[in-house]
Amino acid sequence: MTDLVTFGETMALFTARRTGPMRFARDFDLGIGGAESNVAIGVARLGHGTAWTGRVGADEFGDLIRATLMGEGVLTHAIADPEAPTGLMIKGRRTADLIDVSYYRAGSAGSRLSPGDLDLDLIRSARMLHVSAITPALSASARETVRQAIAGARAAGVPVSLDINYRGRLWSPAEAGAWLRETVGDVDVLFATEAEGRLIADADGAADLAKALAALGPRHVLVKFGARGAMELSDGEIRHAEPYQVTEVDPVGAGDAFAAGWLADWLAGASPDQRLRTACAAGAFAVTSQGDWESLPRRADLRLLHGSADGVTR
Amino acid sequence: MTDLVTFGETMALFTARRTGPMRFARDFDLGIGGAESNVAIGVARLGHGTAWTGRVGADEFGDLIRATLMGEGVLTHAIADPEAPTGLMIKGRRTADLIDVSYYRAGSAGSRLSPGDLDLDLIRSARMLHVSAITPALSASARETVRQAIAGARAAGVPVSLDINYRGRLWSPAEAGAWLRETVGDVDVLFATEAEGRLIADADGAADLAKALAALGPRHVLVKFGARGAMELSDGEIRHAEPYQVTEVDPVGAGDAFAAGWLADWLAGASPDQRLRTACAAGAFAVTSQGDWESLPRRADLRLLHGSADGVTR
Amino acid sequence: MTDLVTFGETMALFTARRTGPMRFARDFDLGIGGAESNVAIGVARLGHGTAWTGRVGADEFGDLIRATLMGEGVLTHAIADPEAPTGLMIKGRRTADLIDVSYYRAGSAGSRLSPGDLDLDLIRSARMLHVSAITPALSASARETVRQAIAGARAAGVPVSLDINYRGRLWSPAEAGAWLRETVGDVDVLFATEAEGRLIADADGAADLAKALAALGPRHVLVKFGARGAMELSDGEIRHAEPYQVTEVDPVGAGDAFAAGWLADWLAGASPDQRLRTACAAGAFAVTSQGDWESLPRRADLRLLHGSADGVTR
Amino acid sequence: MTDLVTFGETMALFTARRTGPMRFARDFDLGIGGAESNVAIGVARLGHGTAWTGRVGADEFGDLIRATLMGEGVLTHAIADPEAPTGLMIKGRRTADLIDVSYYRAGSAGSRLSPGDLDLDLIRSARMLHVSAITPALSASARETVRQAIAGARAAGVPVSLDINYRGRLWSPAEAGAWLRETVGDVDVLFATEAEGRLIADADGAADLAKALAALGPRHVLVKFGARGAMELSDGEIRHAEPYQVTEVDPVGAGDAFAAGWLADWLAGASPDQRLRTACAAGAFAVTSQGDWESLPRRADLRLLHGSADGVTR
Amino acid sequence: MTDLVTFGETMALFTARRTGPMRFARDFDLGIGGAESNVAIGVARLGHGTAWTGRVGADEFGDLIRATLMGEGVLTHAIADPEAPTGLMIKGRRTADLIDVSYYRAGSAGSRLSPGDLDLDLIRSARMLHVSAITPALSASARETVRQAIAGARAAGVPVSLDINYRGRLWSPAEAGAWLRETVGDVDVLFATEAEGRLIADADGAADLAKALAALGPRHVLVKFGARGAMELSDGEIRHAEPYQVTEVDPVGAGDAFAAGWLADWLAGASPDQRLRTACAAGAFAVTSQGDWESLPRRADLRLLHGSADGVTR
Amino acid sequence: MTDLVTFGETMALFTARRTGPMRFARDFDLGIGGAESNVAIGVARLGHGTAWTGRVGADEFGDLIRATLMGEGVLTHAIADPEAPTGLMIKGRRTADLIDVSYYRAGSAGSRLSPGDLDLDLIRSARMLHVSAITPALSASARETVRQAIAGARAAGVPVSLDINYRGRLWSPAEAGAWLRETVGDVDVLFATEAEGRLIADADGAADLAKALAALGPRHVLVKFGARGAMELSDGEIRHAEPYQVTEVDPVGAGDAFAAGWLADWLAGASPDQRLRTACAAGAFAVTSQGDWESLPRRADLRLLHGSADGVTR
Repeated sequence: MTDLVTFGETMALFTARRTGPMRFARDFDLGIGGAESNVAIGVARLGHGTAWTGRVGADEFGDLIRATLMGEGVLTHAIADPEAPTGLMIKGRRTADLIDVSYYRAGSAGSRLSPGDLDLDLIRSARMLHVSAITPALSASARETVRQAIAGARAAGVPVSLDINYRGRLWSPAEAGAWLRETVGDVDVLFATEAEGRLIADADGAADLAKALAALGPRHVLVKFGARGAMELSDGEIRHAEPYQVTEVDPVGAGDAFAAGWLADWLAGASPDQRLRTACAAGAFAVTSQGDWESLPRRADLRLLHGSADGVTR
Repeated sequence: MTDLVTFGETMALFTARRTGPMRFARDFDLGIGGAESNVAIGVARLGHGTAWTGRVGADEFGDLIRATLMGEGVLTHAIADPEAPTGLMIKGRRTADLIDVSYYRAGSAGSRLSPGDLDLDLIRSARMLHVSAITPALSASARETVRQAIAGARAAGVPVSLDINYRGRLWSPAEAGAWLRETVGDVDVLFATEAEGRLIADADGAADLAKALAALGPRHVLVKFGARGAMELSDGEIRHAEPYQVTEVDPVGAGDAFAAGWLADWLAGASPDQRLRTACAAGAFAVTSQGDWESLPRRADLRLLHGSADGVTR
Repeated sequence: MTDLVTFGETMALFTARRTGPMRFARDFDLGIGGAESNVAIGVARLGHGTAWTGRVGADEFGDLIRATLMGEGVLTHAIADPEAPTGLMIKGRRTADLIDVSYYRAGSAGSRLSPGDLDLDLIRSARMLHVSAITPALSASARETVRQAIAGARAAGVPVSLDINYRGRLWSPAEAGAWLRETVGDVDVLFATEAEGRLIADADGAADLAKALAALGPRHVLVKFGARGAMELSDGEIRHAEPYQVTEVDPVGAGDAFAAGWLADWLAGASPDQRLRTACAAGAFAVTSQGDWESLPRRADLRLLHGSADGVTR
Repeated sequence: MTDLVTFGETMALFTARRTGPMRFARDFDLGIGGAESNVAIGVARLGHGTAWTGRVGADEFGDLIRATLMGEGVLTHAIADPEAPTGLMIKGRRTADLIDVSYYRAGSAGSRLSPGDLDLDLIRSARMLHVSAITPALSASARETVRQAIAGARAAGVPVSLDINYRGRLWSPAEAGAWLRETVGDVDVLFATEAEGRLIADADGAADLAKALAALGPRHVLVKFGARGAMELSDGEIRHAEPYQVTEVDPVGAGDAFAAGWLADWLAGASPDQRLRTACAAGAFAVTSQGDWESLPRRADLRLLHGSADGVTR
Repeated sequence: MTDLVTFGETMALFTARRTGPMRFARDFDLGIGGAESNVAIGVARLGHGTAWTGRVGADEFGDLIRATLMGEGVLTHAIADPEAPTGLMIKGRRTADLIDVSYYRAGSAGSRLSPGDLDLDLIRSARMLHVSAITPALSASARETVRQAIAGARAAGVPVSLDINYRGRLWSPAEAGAWLRETVGDVDVLFATEAEGRLIADADGAADLAKALAALGPRHVLVKFGARGAMELSDGEIRHAEPYQVTEVDPVGAGDAFAAGWLADWLAGASPDQRLRTACAAGAFAVTSQGDWESLPRRADLRLLHGSADGVTR
Repeated sequence: MTDLVTFGETMALFTARRTGPMRFARDFDLGIGGAESNVAIGVARLGHGTAWTGRVGADEFGDLIRATLMGEGVLTHAIADPEAPTGLMIKGRRTADLIDVSYYRAGSAGSRLSPGDLDLDLIRSARMLHVSAITPALSASARETVRQAIAGARAAGVPVSLDINYRGRLWSPAEAGAWLRETVGDVDVLFATEAEGRLIADADGAADLAKALAALGPRHVLVKFGARGAMELSDGEIRHAEPYQVTEVDPVGAGDAFAAGWLADWLAGASPDQRLRTACAAGAFAVTSQGDWESLPRRADLRLLHGSADGVTR
């Protein structure tokens, strides 16, 4: 049973092992990453059936993406595009406190996603459709794919979740704002940082921002403050979540983990308080080890946030 | 001249190089580890003759254990058991703050230790016998070996040191408690965390716990609080030790280092205050670099706890 | 559609990166391996649906096995045994020409396989059941599992394939011979090296050996000569296959690759000549790169055995 | 003094450290590579002044290319293009005998080379212009750049060297052939494999092929047979070179090394026999260690082809 | 145009990858390092022409030094000394907070620097000569080289910068003090830690120390307090700089970065306030990633000290 | 019981992991190496008590040497010299077929060996003294140490073994020849390559060379032909040994292994034929894996030269 359906671009990911300018890095790890597939993995680890669709190259990196997602238990439809290669991300640590990410995704297989790639029946029978605002920035066909997916979901009464995930290298704030304004009225759950929220709403404080965003349509608005916690406005009520105190190892993927935690608890029918707590816990847990998605928690992992007496389990 | 004799199971140790769930770790280091041999190395580095006995497989890992301990100057009697392999430990870092250790030691060579493996003459001529409560949990023959060793030491007037080192994967608190209650009356020096002490004594505060433990027989009771220091009750007098402020790199082995520091200073005839300070310093130093025992200090290293002006020596 | 069903023990696999005595190896890779799951991967890569069942520990290595097999497209039923850990293999290169493999599988989760773990319906609806003679050597319950699986297959008219895969560390030649003699009458396809064939048949040359084995029941007998090719006796007719000339990188897994190649072509309805050629090609290809199963070929890979003009594709 | 001027696309190069399908590679090295810059390095190591021009991204990989080439003593004009990233190569070893190279160069900075990037004065004052037929396949502006460079050189009486370096992923044989036919009349030195020569000339044997190529214009035609040596047709005279017997470590870059060896000796005024011998020696030497260009020889290195008595220098 | 000229010994640098006693380190990186060449790189990255002269061995490490410095855009005169090898540094991390550096430089090529190696014309036409007090401690000829360089600069009106960089393994405080007292009168810019300043001046507080140093001749005296900032006394006026709060990754090279920042802004004609701020920023930035000089900032990097909202750029 | 006593310089050893010019190597392993200690390890592995004496620095590398040799069971007297550092070797693979070794040993602790460091009683009670002609080339005191050791052995009737081990970087052929001529009359066993033999004897063929060497004193003359086997002249009788066919991984240490094999069998009282066969087998085995001494065989290893059927043991 597929509870949550998502789609988007997932890429091969080279991660430098040395802190400093990447030209001095000598060893790189190979893995994969993608905002939507991260969410699919995260929700699956928390106990729900998830599915992901995307285009990959007919190449080793495409095979790696397919095998990795299948291995994580995500129902995977990784279409091999014979015309374009799998996109790449290169990730490093510029300084102890600054992650640097660059992309080779122009013209990639993933950006060539088109409406025909979707399985609308799967979307209609799911309990949630999750999309990010990265996909509409990839290409016209990808944007149309998002449009049709949301339309299909709404027509079938399936709620829609959107994580803004603004990427400044793909489009301008104005372009992103225009698309978001068109789309947000069809969205039920909206995830945004404060800066992302301000792409489409004008408000000073976070609470006012949440209200302004909710006024555009979403029933649930989640405003994320990074290491400083998060706020939820649902059905007119505002909740605050205190952040967990953790030692950060790799901040990438925290937002995807937050969304996964929230969506998993929504699917599980948890209370609003519990749901927000799980979202924050998942986000916190995800930064305590290396990797964009490898560190996503299972239910049992969440208790590790409290540690053991001497920090050693045996 | 062998000042301190110990025995137990030492294992090959694979350490994951990546922080996160171990299934995503790709590179592992090979080394060795074992609570008692760690103490033997630690006491040797602080200037005393030490000996260790144990069983290893007739395999590469057994050879590695033998070579490593001999290389550290420990008089090593690593009996090659043709019937069973050397035990393994797998160690990783689940999150920045949580070490995860698992074992492959069921039926291992090390667990097959038996009384005949001991050199009782060596024990009788030593100045201290050190054991841990890991060994009695390994097998009936290992438990009997501990019993005979302690009996032999006592008969010869050699004091006995015991570090509880409770391992929940090997036996239950009830089983451990039963054995400890049988044994502690024959022990002169007892090392325990608060939780370990409560396996056999019921008391609220640490001081009361130390007194309750001392009432069971040991002349010296050491209660360890991890990064928060330690307490010693010796000859009815309680001493507190403030912890050293260090940047922790690897917490594993801190307890063994503490024991080694205390025992080395006891062997050296240091004052009780100095002895406890050295124990804490050794424990603190041991967490400042990688490895269960590689980081054990020499006398000269202990001054490094105070650092140099710019953190660089040249 | 599952064409081939198999089951057995799959283990975590540590591979040393340095040639020489393993105690001097310092870096190890983590992966997985198991004879039957290797075959399941190999047949899947050559285009058929495969399924694998086994027990793993409720631990990181068990999760790794599950994720890896699922990622390779094998319908995976990896039962998490809460009572026992995932087995381990340690693999190294003793010299340039000699691979050394050791195991930590006594009492492992994988060895605790029992008849109830099987999905007999899946076996009955498959087109081939594949087993190895490693499984019966693991435990009484594992042996009974093999017995019931073969009985179930035969009752449903599903042919049975058996690769002898003799493991001298698990049982003696006499024990293996006894089990094989009991079982071989129920087998349709038998894979053996010459030495393995002689566990149950007494004959001088390879052809006579094949005939003696076929006389015990199997319709197809495959005798493997390693780098010197292979022989098939099917329906009374003997075929010889010349070996492919390749540069060997890692010989482990060649036998599994051979079986996978043969079984895939049998499932595809290829001619006997083609089938044997594919088996040899798969075996040859598998040794040209690192890993027990990573190097298993797809159909398109088999043409790479002929190389390109300058050994570089771009 | 710049003896040889060249230009083209140089890319960041990730090299997998494991033999096998690249999706299983876990560690990659970062370096750089590019056919023309390889030649520039090679000729510089053999004692002549060289210059290279190209576009790179305004990114870490562009900086790496600039630093590497400058470090090798090549007069480097690496124009930072703010609009496009540095191209990438991914290189691995599919099997022991097959290198696999893929590219991320569509729309790369390097492909945006345009005539204005050239320093025509530098070309006019050089003693040789070297180009490859990769550049015209990158973009219309890159093709025009080659055209103008050759025209500028010829107008100034500077001889032109062309290495065909056919890349099937960039253009078809027909497209390549058309461009080559247009261009070869302006070329003085032509490097080609047999297959490359047949893109524009129709002849059976290598000697006839060389003659057919020379008939199109070039005074010097070099036909390379990989590990089987090479042939030169200069001024109507054919010379054969026996290959050196070496243990191949990495075949990539052998062609560039051959060209570098020939051009360096041409610049040095060596005899035709010596020139061809140096070309073959440089090509042979380059495959004896890792890297596309790192292994290019200096004059003193060429004697290492004969080895020392026991294969150890000290 | 060469703005700043410097010279000294640059060495090959092996860096251990593991924290702890170096005998347990198993992997080392190869790079280079040298106080003066670090400054030359740092000033070049901040936008000025720099030149470095030194002796290296006629060996691979000498070639590595030459290529690295040329690659960084430093006008490099690395004289290959056929009689002596390139010096070595071995660098590790003894504990999380203590870097350990040792040297193999006795009799090294670098220590054989002699006056004839200098290009006095280059010094005379530069805008600043920078030296360290490491060079005079290397050998008599190296000391004489410093003397002649300073004399040449002064004769041509070129200001002289001196970083004390006291190395206790090369000479005693008394020896260093004697040389510094002889030399400081010819110096315009003096860089010192408090301890270094006290080699030649007797004063309690930092301000008094700065004044006492300035009284010996230098117009600009920079007193560095490591992570606690710095103080400048220029033309009788004292300025204090607050330290930047950064997460330290590798403290080595901070002093060279400080000097580079100050000298670059002096060359750029920045205001005294700005100059000191840039010095501190460069020093702070340099410790935020690995390597003695790899982490030296460009102008654009300095803004990274303020980080981005979520610590990720994309 | 110490059967064989030796002494000399042992160094820390950095080994590059990449084939090619060492300046492009990025990863180095740390280990140790020294001709005499290699022999001590080799003889110990083959079953005899051995002792080694040498000077090391009071540094991490000295500690590493001591721990490694003690770990190998060699009675180790590694004197920590407070005045000089442990010597270094840097080892790499220039091409697939050429190992490159360089040294940092001028002024090293090891070269400061002096007669007082020797334990003459240990030599007098041993059954063989083994020296190399590296030691006399290190320093005057080291040369005198060799002289006194040989004199002490002879006075006590202990036979002396000498491996010429000519090192061209330490002394000239003339210097070496002079020393050898002085010394060879006191030697009972002489190991030499043909080139080394010709330093002191003038003869065309190997047999004549052996006779000429024997005429200078040694009862046993061993002439080594590398991969082409060896010849022994003992008591006037010449024996030839065919080489073993092995795949070479690292040729360094083969000569030490040959000596160790011969000496171990001499100590064991083996027949001359067996002794020479063991010497060749040990030399052959030592090149089949990485490391100067790690690959030295035990008795049981020698049978691995014949391999197993499929090159895999399990």
